[in-house]
Amino acid sequence: MVAVFIGRFQPVHRGHIHTIRQILSEEGELIIAIGSAQYSHTPDNPFSGGERVMFLHHALIEEGIDMSRVYIVPVPDIHIHPLWVAHLKSLTPYFDRAYTHNPLVRRLLEDAGVEVCETKLLERSRFSAEHVRELLRQGGNWEALVPPSVAALIKKHKMDERVRAIGDTRLKR
Amino acid sequence: MVAVFIGRFQPVHRGHIHTIRQILSEEGELIIAIGSAQYSHTPDNPFSGGERVMFLHHALIEEGIDMSRVYIVPVPDIHIHPLWVAHLKSLTPYFDRAYTHNPLVRRLLEDAGVEVCETKLLERSRFSAEHVRELLRQGGNWEALVPPSVAALIKKHKMDERVRAIGDTRLKR
Amino acid sequence: MVAVFIGRFQPVHRGHIHTIRQILSEEGELIIAIGSAQYSHTPDNPFSGGERVMFLHHALIEEGIDMSRVYIVPVPDIHIHPLWVAHLKSLTPYFDRAYTHNPLVRRLLEDAGVEVCETKLLERSRFSAEHVRELLRQGGNWEALVPPSVAALIKKHKMDERVRAIGDTRLKR
Amino acid sequence: MVAVFIGRFQPVHRGHIHTIRQILSEEGELIIAIGSAQYSHTPDNPFSGGERVMFLHHALIEEGIDMSRVYIVPVPDIHIHPLWVAHLKSLTPYFDRAYTHNPLVRRLLEDAGVEVCETKLLERSRFSAEHVRELLRQGGNWEALVPPSVAALIKKHKMDERVRAIGDTRLKR
Amino acid sequence: MVAVFIGRFQPVHRGHIHTIRQILSEEGELIIAIGSAQYSHTPDNPFSGGERVMFLHHALIEEGIDMSRVYIVPVPDIHIHPLWVAHLKSLTPYFDRAYTHNPLVRRLLEDAGVEVCETKLLERSRFSAEHVRELLRQGGNWEALVPPSVAALIKKHKMDERVRAIGDTRLKR
Amino acid sequence: MVAVFIGRFQPVHRGHIHTIRQILSEEGELIIAIGSAQYSHTPDNPFSGGERVMFLHHALIEEGIDMSRVYIVPVPDIHIHPLWVAHLKSLTPYFDRAYTHNPLVRRLLEDAGVEVCETKLLERSRFSAEHVRELLRQGGNWEALVPPSVAALIKKHKMDERVRAIGDTRLKR
Repeated sequence: MVAVFIGRFQPVHRGHIHTIRQILSEEGELIIAIGSAQYSHTPDNPFSGGERVMFLHHALIEEGIDMSRVYIVPVPDIHIHPLWVAHLKSLTPYFDRAYTHNPLVRRLLEDAGVEVCETKLLERSRFSAEHVRELLRQGGNWEALVPPSVAALIKKHKMDERVRAIGDTRLKR
Repeated sequence: MVAVFIGRFQPVHRGHIHTIRQILSEEGELIIAIGSAQYSHTPDNPFSGGERVMFLHHALIEEGIDMSRVYIVPVPDIHIHPLWVAHLKSLTPYFDRAYTHNPLVRRLLEDAGVEVCETKLLERSRFSAEHVRELLRQGGNWEALVPPSVAALIKKHKMDERVRAIGDTRLKR
Repeated sequence: MVAVFIGRFQPVHRGHIHTIRQILSEEGELIIAIGSAQYSHTPDNPFSGGERVMFLHHALIEEGIDMSRVYIVPVPDIHIHPLWVAHLKSLTPYFDRAYTHNPLVRRLLEDAGVEVCETKLLERSRFSAEHVRELLRQGGNWEALVPPSVAALIKKHKMDERVRAIGDTRLKR
Repeated sequence: MVAVFIGRFQPVHRGHIHTIRQILSEEGELIIAIGSAQYSHTPDNPFSGGERVMFLHHALIEEGIDMSRVYIVPVPDIHIHPLWVAHLKSLTPYFDRAYTHNPLVRRLLEDAGVEVCETKLLERSRFSAEHVRELLRQGGNWEALVPPSVAALIKKHKMDERVRAIGDTRLKR
Repeated sequence: MVAVFIGRFQPVHRGHIHTIRQILSEEGELIIAIGSAQYSHTPDNPFSGGERVMFLHHALIEEGIDMSRVYIVPVPDIHIHPLWVAHLKSLTPYFDRAYTHNPLVRRLLEDAGVEVCETKLLERSRFSAEHVRELLRQGGNWEALVPPSVAALIKKHKMDERVRAIGDTRLKR
Repeated sequence: MVAVFIGRFQPVHRGHIHTIRQILSEEGELIIAIGSAQYSHTPDNPFSGGERVMFLHHALIEEGIDMSRVYIVPVPDIHIHPLWVAHLKSLTPYFDRAYTHNPLVRRLLEDAGVEVCETKLLERSRFSAEHVRELLRQGGNWEALVPPSVAALIKKHKMDERVRAIGDTRLKR
C-alpha cells in the first residue's frame, strides 16, 4: 500500500521522523507531501520548499531509511479548500490512504473519500515545529529537537540567522 | 428595475429573506450575488458557493417567491478592491442599483458610480450569519434563525458536523 | 435527480434550448454551468458571464420553463484540468449526473467518478455557437439560430457591434 | 488635461516617439502605460517591463521632453478583458482621455466610458515593434528604427543577443 | 549609480521626501518602487497604486527635484517572498543598490546578492504613514505631516472621506 | 556537486534515462525538476505531475540507480519567465549547475548566473516525448521508446486510453 503524510516541515524535527518510521512499518511506500511549499522568509514559513526537501532527504538517509520506498513532494498552497485534495492528488503519485494529525486536513480528505489514519505523536508539546522556530528565534537549544543532519544544514547555510532576522517583523516597507 | 443584493450567505438566515422580500417589493428583478464563492471549510466560510446557491434556491421556493424574478450568482473573491465592481458586473446581469449594509461595499460601488440603497434590517444582533455559525459550533438553537429548508439541507448533508469539525482550527498540518 | 449541463453559451442558441428541454424531460432539476465565465470581449468569448446568465434566464422564461427547476451558474475557467471537477462541484449545487458533448469534459468528469450522459443534438453544424459568432461577424442571419429573447438582448445592448469590433483582432496594443 | 497612451513598447521605436510628441502638443500631462509588463524573454515580449521603462525614460530625455509632464507606468496583463480598464485605472494617475490605435483596447475603454482619441501614425509598416523584433532576429538594420539611446541600451546590455537566442523557440524543455 | 528605494507610500509623507533627498545627494538616479501597488480601499492600503504615483510625482516637482533623475514605478505584491527580488527587478530599470528601513526587505535583497544601504530617518514616530492614516481617520492634523501638494490632492479628490469610510471595517458583506 | 536537470517528462522515455545516467556519472547528486507540473489531460501535457513523479521513481529503481543520490521535484509553471529561475530555486534543493537542451531555459538560467551544461542526446528524433505521445495517439509501438516500468504503469492505469481520448480535442464544451 502507498500512504501520503502531509506536513509543512518548518523545519523537519524528530517528531516527524518518529511518525515517518511508524508509517513505513505499516505501508509499502510513503509520499511525504510538503505543504505551503512556495513560501519562505516568513515567521511561520521561514524555510523554502526546496530547503525542506533537502532537510527530509538528508534526515531520512541519516536514519538509514530505504529511499526507494519514499517520495518527497513539495505541494504549494492554493488557499481554496474545496480544491485542495484534487490539487494534492495532481502532484503526488497515486496513494491508498493518508496520515495527518490536523483536523481540517482530515476533514477535507474524508469529504473527498480518502481513508485517513493517525499515528502516535512523540511528545507533541516538545517536538513541534512551532517550538523549534521559537527556540531558533530566542536562542534556545533547538538542535536537540531536530535530526543532526538538519541542524547541520541550518547552521551551514546560516538559516538560523534568517529565522532571527525575520523574527517578529512582517513585510511592511 | 433590476437590483443586486450582495452577501456571503454563510449560511442563509431569516434576516436575508426579510431583506430579499423588501427589495422584491420595490424592484422588478433581483440578482443575489454570493460573495467569497470559491471558499468553504473555513470558520468564516464553512459552506461552499454551490451549497449557498442551493440554500437560497430552496429557501426562496419555500417562501413562494417567483423564481423568474430572481438570479442567484456565485461571485468568487478577487481580493483587489479597485477591480471588484468590474468583476461583480462581469459575472452578473445588468443592474440598475445595489443593496448592501456593508460600508466598504457601499463605498466601492459608489466610487464606481453605482446607486446604493439600504433596507431595514431584521434584528441584526440576532439574525446574523456570524451568530448562526457560533450556535452551530456550540450546539445552540441555530435552526430557529434559518429558513426550515436551509436547516433541513444542513442536517441532511451533515454540514453541521463540518462546522463543528473545523470549528476553531485553521489549516496547520 | 439533479443534472448539470456544461457549456460556454457564446451565445445561447436554439440547440442549447433543445438540449435543455431533453434533459428536463429526464431529470427533476437542472444546473446550467456557464464555463469560461470570467471572459468577454474576445473572438471566442465575446459575451460576459453575466450577459450569458441573462441570455439563459430570459430564453428559458420565454420557453415557459419552470424556473424553480433550474439553476444558472457562471463557472470561471481555472485552466488546470485535474482540479476542474472539484472546482465545478464547489460552485454548483450537488448533482447526480452530468451532460456534455465534449470529449475532454466527459473524460474529466468520468475520471472523477461522475456519471456522464448525452443528448441528441439539434443539427450540430447549423446550431453551434461558433456558427452564430461567425454570422454575427459577417452580417449573416444569426437571429434565426438563437431564441428571440436572446436576439433582442444582443441588439438592444449593441453586443452585435461588439462582436464585429473585436472580430479578428486580438489585444495587441 | 491628462491623457494615457497604451502600448507594449517591445521595443520603443521612432513611431512611438512621434505619437508621444503629438499627444504632448495637445495635452498637459501624459501617462505612458506599458502593457504586458510582467513578461520578458518571449518572442513577442523579449524585453522586461523594467527595461521598457528604461527605454522610454532615456528616449524622452534624449528628445528633450520635459519629464515633469510625463508618467511612465508598467501595467501587468491580467488576461480578463472586462476588468482591464479598472486595472489600468488602479495603477495610473487619474486621466481624462486615452490614445490607442488598437481596436480592442479602444472598445474596452469606450465600453467603460473613457473618451478615446487617435493620432496619425508614422509609416506603420516600417515603424512597428514587430518589424524591429524581426530585424533584431534576422540581423537587419533595426537601429535605424529606434531612438539612438534605445539602440545603445540594447547593445550595451546585449539584449539583441537575447532576442536572437529566444528567436523562434518556445519554452519546451 | 542607480538606486532603488522601496516603500508603500500610504500616503507619501515628509519623511519620504527627506529620505529621497538624501539618496539623490548620493546617487545619480533613483527608482522609487511603490509596493502593494494593486491595492486600495483597505485600512492599510487606502490609496491606489496610481494615486500614489500621482502623489510622488507632484510632491517631487513641488520640491524642485529634477524629474529626469527619478523613476516612479508601481510594483504589485506577489505574496511569495523567494520570488520578490526577481519580480522587483523585472518591473524596474537596472539598479546598483537598494535603500530600505524594513528588515525583511533588507534580508530578501541581501539573500539575492543586492547591496542594501540605509538613510537617516526623519523622526520616525511622527513621520510615518501609519500615523498619517490614523490622523486621517480620527480627524487630527495630518496635513502637517505630508507635502502640501499631497494634502491638496487628498482633499480635492475626497480621499480623506474614503479613509474615514473604510476606517475600521473590513469587507464583510 | 549537485546538478538539476529540467524536463517535462510527458512521458519519461529512454532518452531521459540516457541523460540521467550521463549526469550521474559526472555529479554527486541530481535533482530532476518536472516542469509544467500542475497540468494533465491536455494533448501536450497528458500526464499529471504526480504521475510523472511516479514514472521517474519506478524507472530509476528499475535501472538500479541509487535513489539516495536523486531528488524528483514537480515544479508548476508560473508563465512569467523573469521569475522562473527564482521559482525553480525556491522549490528545489541548492544546486551547483543545470542541464538542459532547451535554448530558452538555458538563456533564463544563464541570465540568472547559473552554469549550464549539456549532455549528448540519444537519437533525438526517435527518443522524444512528442514522438511517444504521437505513437500513443495513433497506436504505434510507443512501448519500445519508454522504460518497461513506465509502459507498465501507463497500461495498468489506462493512461494510454486517456491520451487517445483527449487526442486532438481541446476543452471546448
